[in-house]
Amino acid sequence: MSLKLTILGCHSATPRVNAHPTAQYLEIKNHSFLIDCGEGTQVQLRKYKIKFTKIKHIFISHLHGDHIYGLVGLISTFRLLNRESELNIYAPKGLKEIITLQLRLTNSWTQFPLLFHELTSKKSELIFEDSKVEVHTIPLDHRIYTNGFLFKEKLGERKLNLSSIINEPEIERCDYQNLKNGKDFILNNGTILKNELLTLDPPKPLSYAFCSDTGYYPEIVPIIKEVSCLYHETTFLNDRKELAQTTKHSTAQQAAKIAKLAKVKQLIIGHYSGRYKNIQLFKNEADTVFENTLLAEVGKVFEII
Amino acid sequence: MSLKLTILGCHSATPRVNAHPTAQYLEIKNHSFLIDCGEGTQVQLRKYKIKFTKIKHIFISHLHGDHIYGLVGLISTFRLLNRESELNIYAPKGLKEIITLQLRLTNSWTQFPLLFHELTSKKSELIFEDSKVEVHTIPLDHRIYTNGFLFKEKLGERKLNLSSIINEPEIERCDYQNLKNGKDFILNNGTILKNELLTLDPPKPLSYAFCSDTGYYPEIVPIIKEVSCLYHETTFLNDRKELAQTTKHSTAQQAAKIAKLAKVKQLIIGHYSGRYKNIQLFKNEADTVFENTLLAEVGKVFEII
Repeated sequence: MSLKLTILGCHSATPRVNAHPTAQYLEIKNHSFLIDCGEGTQVQLRKYKIKFTKIKHIFISHLHGDHIYGLVGLISTFRLLNRESELNIYAPKGLKEIITLQLRLTNSWTQFPLLFHELTSKKSELIFEDSKVEVHTIPLDHRIYTNGFLFKEKLGERKLNLSSIINEPEIERCDYQNLKNGKDFILNNGTILKNELLTLDPPKPLSYAFCSDTGYYPEIVPIIKEVSCLYHETTFLNDRKELAQTTKHSTAQQAAKIAKLAKVKQLIIGHYSGRYKNIQLFKNEADTVFENTLLAEVGKVFEII
Repeated sequence: MSLKLTILGCHSATPRVNAHPTAQYLEIKNHSFLIDCGEGTQVQLRKYKIKFTKIKHIFISHLHGDHIYGLVGLISTFRLLNRESELNIYAPKGLKEIITLQLRLTNSWTQFPLLFHELTSKKSELIFEDSKVEVHTIPLDHRIYTNGFLFKEKLGERKLNLSSIINEPEIERCDYQNLKNGKDFILNNGTILKNELLTLDPPKPLSYAFCSDTGYYPEIVPIIKEVSCLYHETTFLNDRKELAQTTKHSTAQQAAKIAKLAKVKQLIIGHYSGRYKNIQLFKNEADTVFENTLLAEVGKVFEII
């Protein structure tokens, strides 16, 4: 199993002909999540053939334009396409007002349930959970209230160890679910077969942490500890470290430092400033600190394993 | 002299990979006007190499998303590019609230003067005027409050008739402005030379009427009478005349009928529904009623003479 991450946009500030503001599409277990929604995201979704109907949850990090200006258009398009299913939006307080004002002024209320989950807490909190997946906020350090998001698979069922089970004729198919749930098996003669003899550990749950926008903020390390994949913004290179500090953004070196401190498996970087024409420089800088760094690029799909 | 109109977007409803919602760039006399601003307009401006700083006046027909969702992003980009000059926005009441709410919630007030001219009148009114150009609203018939805009050159100065003037040695260079202003010339012997002997009529002022979105609405005919060029929306063909009526849009036949009634010189049509794959059908239908019809296409530049 794997998570699948599609980069719809990974540039900072303003959309340009070949630069798209932040938006990502994450497939995790049975869910399809949209993360941030800069201007033009709906066109990017179409370009990469992502079905609109699959998106039932949208996570918005903060209210700066390059992360939200595509959202009202996407919602309007869902409406025009006669969407019926519920849409959940997890976003800082204020976004609901922005969206509903525009729908109200144009008599364009959605016919589908549009549910806003307004975020205000400065501590990490669980904001979504079902039987297979959890999503937690990652409070970040930006100029306005901003959260990253930690997407975690839950620990799955234990796997049947068929080579052991085959030797136990008393175990029948109807017992399998109890074994998967971790129960021991009692033979007719009263002997207890310990569960760990009959099953194998489930695969280690995968996790993805999205952190944009933020200054260098080691306070996030405990939250993102050992994630399978960390996306961390790198608006600048180290040559503009001071500008990064003033604007509360990160350099590639700082992002890599966070990845190293958190012992993550893989780092993806993005949110590049338009000042830099060659994004390879971001990887070069990050590589000096953290060895497994990949560059976000528009349209690129990452399989997180 | 001519007006120059660049089509940045001419499709209705939702932006798609090769379909851009309404936005037009009009160069008239010393002005560069932006008309409507659907999502992605700032990228279109960049694509067609239009300098952001030239735009000092933006005219918004109505608050439906496909005409405004690119505006807040464009304003934010102006801000990020350290624009200093004033920006005037002529738009239905409500847009100011939409834009300022977003700027307020993100602490992103513009450093340049951002002036909203809120429109509420249901009668045609003069909304902009300087020595060379006038702009009037054209009240339209859509589902929400909507105006088209009539852009008119003012009648210029009379032109010197040099072949006459050369025979009058008493007329000196310092007299030229009076002649251009229409004054007669009095010779030293008291003889009056009539102005029309010394000057020629100025060129006929050009005019451009933008009408989107609207149902068939002959009430606009007196306002747009004999304009040099009319842009009229044609969301549908005649096969969906009833849908056009319900949604308060026009068919190509209806747009052409308006052009004919108003005796305009030239008709440009656009705002095509995504239902139609071949836009040539719109021209074919309009041609049956009005002979000088052109199709709006993204990136196309029209010289209006």
